[in-house]
Amino acid sequence: MRGALAAMQGLSDEEKVRGVVTHSSGNFAQAISLASATLGLPAYIVMPRNAPEVKKAAVRTYGGQIIEVEPNLEARQAAADRIIEEKGARFIHPSNDYRVILGQGTAAAELLLEVPDLDMVLSPVGGGGLLAGTAVATRYLGKARCLTFGAEPETVNDAYQSFHKGTIQPSTGGQTIADGLRTQLGDINFPIIRELVTDIHLVKEDEIIDAMRWIWERLKIVVEPSAAVPLAAVFKNQWRGKIGIVISGGNVDLGRLPF
Amino acid sequence: MRGALAAMQGLSDEEKVRGVVTHSSGNFAQAISLASATLGLPAYIVMPRNAPEVKKAAVRTYGGQIIEVEPNLEARQAAADRIIEEKGARFIHPSNDYRVILGQGTAAAELLLEVPDLDMVLSPVGGGGLLAGTAVATRYLGKARCLTFGAEPETVNDAYQSFHKGTIQPSTGGQTIADGLRTQLGDINFPIIRELVTDIHLVKEDEIIDAMRWIWERLKIVVEPSAAVPLAAVFKNQWRGKIGIVISGGNVDLGRLPF
Repeated sequence: MRGALAAMQGLSDEEKVRGVVTHSSGNFAQAISLASATLGLPAYIVMPRNAPEVKKAAVRTYGGQIIEVEPNLEARQAAADRIIEEKGARFIHPSNDYRVILGQGTAAAELLLEVPDLDMVLSPVGGGGLLAGTAVATRYLGKARCLTFGAEPETVNDAYQSFHKGTIQPSTGGQTIADGLRTQLGDINFPIIRELVTDIHLVKEDEIIDAMRWIWERLKIVVEPSAAVPLAAVFKNQWRGKIGIVISGGNVDLGRLPF
Repeated sequence: MRGALAAMQGLSDEEKVRGVVTHSSGNFAQAISLASATLGLPAYIVMPRNAPEVKKAAVRTYGGQIIEVEPNLEARQAAADRIIEEKGARFIHPSNDYRVILGQGTAAAELLLEVPDLDMVLSPVGGGGLLAGTAVATRYLGKARCLTFGAEPETVNDAYQSFHKGTIQPSTGGQTIADGLRTQLGDINFPIIRELVTDIHLVKEDEIIDAMRWIWERLKIVVEPSAAVPLAAVFKNQWRGKIGIVISGGNVDLGRLPF
């Protein structure tokens, strides 16, 4: 939501009238819809035909117009291109966009303004927007030795691979309960991550579920598995000190919990 | 937790050394334990032998000493009296205590300081401490016409009955998913409720579950059924306007959700 709002606020008045388009089946689809309703501009969301009905319903409730396509990259891109052509809408990528990155970074920025002496800040990494933004905020607002780490499921470790090989690796195609993190890094956020992030830590599926349950039971926050991945890394490595974690995403089906 | 802390902060230094005792199987047991650990004084919690193990474990984690008794009023009272006698501990009632009432009222007080122009404020009513405190805060900090309402499950409507008959009615003994609200009013909080509360609204079990699910899905907060009762009343009566709700209690077994 922070990234979606930041991206829209950067539009000219003329661009705002024509609206925005994105492709997403998850949180960013809902965020763009809600942000566009908040700012009073049209939003077109390209979603795969097989996306859960509950996610489509949420997008519609917030006012976004859904364009359903076959669940593949070509169909998704073709539909977005057509909206750009027909409506003059501005394309906003869910993670590979400077304004989205800076918007996502405001979470860590607010945290560091409140707790300036953190030793480390962690965020999940999927598409890379949240991690890049978190790293920028931590570099500029954290103390000199405050480190930024990403956290990723072992089964979809393309960000980890990319980070260590130095070039963007494609999605592994693996399965994970943290389905929000299956996307791959982009050419805008990857250089930021390479420069400002210290390392990316991997966690197992059962570690993610345990951390998710801990957040539900102790913090009383409804989070999706993706949001629990950084805490799983903290528990796994038994880190001590002043640790900041960006918790983002509560898109869960309450009828199908992993515990 | 607010009530427990307020009650303990009112103790003399001598009383603090001897500690506190309460009887509760729910949130107040954990609150007294955590508050006593925070302030560094001993806490004795009288709990029924058949209380869920998870609740006992939580009390122990926070540092409280549990005294297990048979699940009836006499055993409970006898055990508390013995602790008072032996340890010189101060008894703190979960709801029928002026300091507890004022402590619980700080939730509505903070809300009204932030949003001064509320039209009404609602809280659940079980033992009556939270509702009495909410009513006091609303009277002193709300605008002149801001009303306080209680909300209670239909099946355990003893507060509703007491309010309208003018004398404290015993617990109905009914069953409700909002198990934190099965207790009855006390002689300290009841006169406050009679004077400052406008009415008590009743809701059905399925209305409680629907409101609980709404809070989980939209507000992303893990709440127990009792905490959802006021929102259920708002939905049922389709009230519009600036409505404040005190949401309190997240004591749920994630393995046994009603949805």
